[in-house]
Amino acid sequence: MESEALIHQTNYLFNTLFLLFSGALVMWMAAGFAMLEAGLVRTKNTTEILTKNLLLYALAVIAYQIVGFDIMYQGNDTAGWIPSFGFGINATAEGASQSSNVDFFFQVVFVATAMSIISGAVAERMKLSSFLIFAIFMTTIIYPIEGYWTWGAGALGASIEDGGLGFSDFAGSAIVHMAGAVAALAGVIFLGPRRGRYTDKGAKPMPGANMPLVTLGAFILWLGWLGFNGGSQLSFTGIEDADAVAAVFVNTNAAAAAGALTAYLLSVVIYGKADLTLIVNGALSGLVTITAAPDSPTAIQAVLFGGIGATAAFFAIGFFDKIKIDDPVGAISVHGVAGFVGILLVPVTKDVTVITQLIGVGIIVAWVFAASTVFWLAIKYTVGLRISEQDEYLGADISECGLEAYPEFSSGNSKNIR
Amino acid sequence: MESEALIHQTNYLFNTLFLLFSGALVMWMAAGFAMLEAGLVRTKNTTEILTKNLLLYALAVIAYQIVGFDIMYQGNDTAGWIPSFGFGINATAEGASQSSNVDFFFQVVFVATAMSIISGAVAERMKLSSFLIFAIFMTTIIYPIEGYWTWGAGALGASIEDGGLGFSDFAGSAIVHMAGAVAALAGVIFLGPRRGRYTDKGAKPMPGANMPLVTLGAFILWLGWLGFNGGSQLSFTGIEDADAVAAVFVNTNAAAAAGALTAYLLSVVIYGKADLTLIVNGALSGLVTITAAPDSPTAIQAVLFGGIGATAAFFAIGFFDKIKIDDPVGAISVHGVAGFVGILLVPVTKDVTVITQLIGVGIIVAWVFAASTVFWLAIKYTVGLRISEQDEYLGADISECGLEAYPEFSSGNSKNIR
Amino acid sequence: MESEALIHQTNYLFNTLFLLFSGALVMWMAAGFAMLEAGLVRTKNTTEILTKNLLLYALAVIAYQIVGFDIMYQGNDTAGWIPSFGFGINATAEGASQSSNVDFFFQVVFVATAMSIISGAVAERMKLSSFLIFAIFMTTIIYPIEGYWTWGAGALGASIEDGGLGFSDFAGSAIVHMAGAVAALAGVIFLGPRRGRYTDKGAKPMPGANMPLVTLGAFILWLGWLGFNGGSQLSFTGIEDADAVAAVFVNTNAAAAAGALTAYLLSVVIYGKADLTLIVNGALSGLVTITAAPDSPTAIQAVLFGGIGATAAFFAIGFFDKIKIDDPVGAISVHGVAGFVGILLVPVTKDVTVITQLIGVGIIVAWVFAASTVFWLAIKYTVGLRISEQDEYLGADISECGLEAYPEFSSGNSKNIR
Repeated sequence: MESEALIHQTNYLFNTLFLLFSGALVMWMAAGFAMLEAGLVRTKNTTEILTKNLLLYALAVIAYQIVGFDIMYQGNDTAGWIPSFGFGINATAEGASQSSNVDFFFQVVFVATAMSIISGAVAERMKLSSFLIFAIFMTTIIYPIEGYWTWGAGALGASIEDGGLGFSDFAGSAIVHMAGAVAALAGVIFLGPRRGRYTDKGAKPMPGANMPLVTLGAFILWLGWLGFNGGSQLSFTGIEDADAVAAVFVNTNAAAAAGALTAYLLSVVIYGKADLTLIVNGALSGLVTITAAPDSPTAIQAVLFGGIGATAAFFAIGFFDKIKIDDPVGAISVHGVAGFVGILLVPVTKDVTVITQLIGVGIIVAWVFAASTVFWLAIKYTVGLRISEQDEYLGADISECGLEAYPEFSSGNSKNIR
Repeated sequence: MESEALIHQTNYLFNTLFLLFSGALVMWMAAGFAMLEAGLVRTKNTTEILTKNLLLYALAVIAYQIVGFDIMYQGNDTAGWIPSFGFGINATAEGASQSSNVDFFFQVVFVATAMSIISGAVAERMKLSSFLIFAIFMTTIIYPIEGYWTWGAGALGASIEDGGLGFSDFAGSAIVHMAGAVAALAGVIFLGPRRGRYTDKGAKPMPGANMPLVTLGAFILWLGWLGFNGGSQLSFTGIEDADAVAAVFVNTNAAAAAGALTAYLLSVVIYGKADLTLIVNGALSGLVTITAAPDSPTAIQAVLFGGIGATAAFFAIGFFDKIKIDDPVGAISVHGVAGFVGILLVPVTKDVTVITQLIGVGIIVAWVFAASTVFWLAIKYTVGLRISEQDEYLGADISECGLEAYPEFSSGNSKNIR
Repeated sequence: MESEALIHQTNYLFNTLFLLFSGALVMWMAAGFAMLEAGLVRTKNTTEILTKNLLLYALAVIAYQIVGFDIMYQGNDTAGWIPSFGFGINATAEGASQSSNVDFFFQVVFVATAMSIISGAVAERMKLSSFLIFAIFMTTIIYPIEGYWTWGAGALGASIEDGGLGFSDFAGSAIVHMAGAVAALAGVIFLGPRRGRYTDKGAKPMPGANMPLVTLGAFILWLGWLGFNGGSQLSFTGIEDADAVAAVFVNTNAAAAAGALTAYLLSVVIYGKADLTLIVNGALSGLVTITAAPDSPTAIQAVLFGGIGATAAFFAIGFFDKIKIDDPVGAISVHGVAGFVGILLVPVTKDVTVITQLIGVGIIVAWVFAASTVFWLAIKYTVGLRISEQDEYLGADISECGLEAYPEFSSGNSKNIR
């Protein structure tokens, strides 16, 4: 075999194996979100949220395969605003450094992540079918279009030389996480809080039913995130790639650790207790924060960034409760606020200005919020967003799925909790 | 180093890393089956099914190491019917493209999968020791012999030019999944249904006790299946291999997604509810269906095939209940019926006839059913298959394991359920 | 590109991908310990042990990054006793075969494992903050110093030619597992047993609350251990490496299987029941045993070694209960006793004497026990080790975390169990 052909083949094999490995880790995050959310809701809404997570993953895979991937990546103009439109996954181009299938596989698990974020925020009161309809819009239109603007080489992500803004978001603090959070925020606004959540005496705690599931979900997400950020190097063909991916693994891990410890310290200082759900959200906030630039910081910077993001999200959780934005799992704070912090921290380690980052994130947020509003309202005034008052009281498991999550465990405290 | 030796070494390293990665994913499926089954039985039989899953994996690993692997793969005639017989794992042959240890590691996790399938179908009433005795026969005789006929280059799997049938089953829709389902079917026939399951008023629902476990199991299996199907390419040394594996990942993921959505739609249309257990079985049915040929379909075909397999399994679950084949987890429908559909769909994308596929699958099914019958009956009339009526009433956890699965959670509804 | 540079690059890529894959598997073990331990304690202490596992991982990552890694590996004398001292992760050296970041990533997940072992043994009565203070000492001083002596090329691990002892511990039966167990033993001695555990009538069973979690934890650890032992080859650049890693995967899997089956047989013979917790500990004991030399045995030897280690741990669990060392999860037996067996079995397959192994393990144990004693006592006489009697009665979840693990599941049997 010719030497050059051999080098090309070796690169092709490394890229493919690397992206399959990374993609498998990201796919696993779907399980992480499912477990996290199932542990954070009450027993009576557990089957429904599990069903939702399984179906949103399935739906995202197929919707993104049919049109989303094409809109985001295939056949678009550099630095443009309007994506081209087509179907399916193109054939691998002559001389490509990996098959288009492995590109697709890695990207499709990202769109599912964006969708998973929404699922938690609207838990315990949204109709399953309404959520799934929104999932179609999110995965075929909202996410692919802003994804084209950024990762698809459109107007935001293209370099300044190529006529773009030069917005920098390595693995998606804004493109994936804030996008999910903003769509969720719009949803929660039109959906309203869970009944009984906000009383005259303030927000009533509605504790999650299963802490081991919450912790399992956190560990799954932590593991999967190594692939989420590491795989976003997208190439594994030289020593620079290998070094970058190794740094990403170290930094991602460090930021999560710092986020967890920060939330622990804040929780102990402020509440006198080590609140597991806050600690889990701290770890996740660290992960979201580092996602914007996991390749360029030193490990110590990653620790600092994780801590800063977790602090912001920690206080945001309280803030959203104060303004009666009812987010049962804290998704808007963790993915939105920490994601925003991550975007603003990119200039510390990369050659991009804060202004550029603010413009980029502003446009993404405006688009996602506006488009989500349109779709949420369209659903609200057609099929409706919310389950009935009685169904909410009895739990979405019965009304939506006809199946209790734990039929044999009596809900001793359920009267207090309902 | 000589150029040719270097190429050989690079290939060797890619093959090994690829098969270790794939094998690790398949090993993880053992956890998936354990969680799935533990969530689908009632609390009183949960410890027993967990114990069974852990032990069947352990037993399969050792039994296959001692004789099964040799019968299936080592030193056999091409296109033959009678395998040779020997012990252990042969030394790596001179010039081989990977070590025999990595071959063994990838294959041993398959035999455990076949065995896991049986475990669910006979749940809640079989003696643990009887099950383990059957596991020895399955992993040393039943599976390795039909495995030799097919993947071991025996009479069914060898190409027509080599004097074989040319039966095509890429990753084991029939060889692993139907084999497990057929052995399970024979077991269930001789074991009988759970007491109280079939009454004058029809089948009494005995809902699974823990839906988060069911969902976790489904996600684990979904993830592990990427390695199950992807690794079955068995080689990762050229661009064609990389493309094939990438296509397998995309198609496997797509078929599972389509299976889940299909079952959701059927469940909503027929029962008016999004039944989580049916949706999980839909996803798994999609996976079983695509397993026969995950490399050759387009992604759209994979969606269609997953949907067809899930539809067949969906109705099969009802059918088996009607004929009083009591399969608590739906394993016979998911792995048997969807596996059969998958085998029949191979000719759509590969150069093989339906007749060839029917002959192949017919011989596998006949062998597995006949041999399983012999072994199940031998066990039945010696140590017995079933736990006593009282033990079944109180639960296998106490009688078999002396340990409750959830000793502190009162079983509020257990009287209704028992 | 020059041929030599190309070979170096290919090696670099293989090493990096191999260590990222292995490290991801080991990171996953943190989740395994969390699930295992959460399932083995009573409901009232479940949130606390989950919190502890999440925080110990976070703390280990950051503490090891700041000083532990440097003490253990960077800039030390060969065959020395006193490590050098510095901060952070050094830049990758010129001509290195992988980046220092990937070295760090793989090693950092090991220190977390050592710490996880301790967590289980002191469960249900230690203060969370006291545990975390000890974790700082363990991850920055105790483990890195003995780690330098052995893997860091210090006096124990260096070869005899280099002036060292030539102690052999491939993946850490002593260096990681016994170290964790010995630190745990010292902690348990100064902490004392759970109240009510040892009565005049002998040890009172305090059954774990959630068997599916125990089993999930076991499967996670089993999977992660493939990376723990496999990755310890540390290099993946030639056929010999590939063969070694493949052998490690097969042997690790076989030893775990043998451990599980051995514990099953012992449990059935001695107690008449298949006790799931003993079987899980059998599998883990097999894993700990093979860890000292997973690369050199044949697969049959691995089966025997796993069985021997599991037998020793099986009886050790009863022994420690007899001498009132209260270890709720059996960690001291599984990681300490089976680890010791593993170290003593190394001479069967490797060129090292039993005397060498005994000296090495003796020094490690003496150091870890002495240093742990100092730190545990320092904590005991300052902030204290134990939660109050009332907090222990009500559960650490309320006093430490302010959060129940399962707030809606009534604890039907809790009066009997408390």
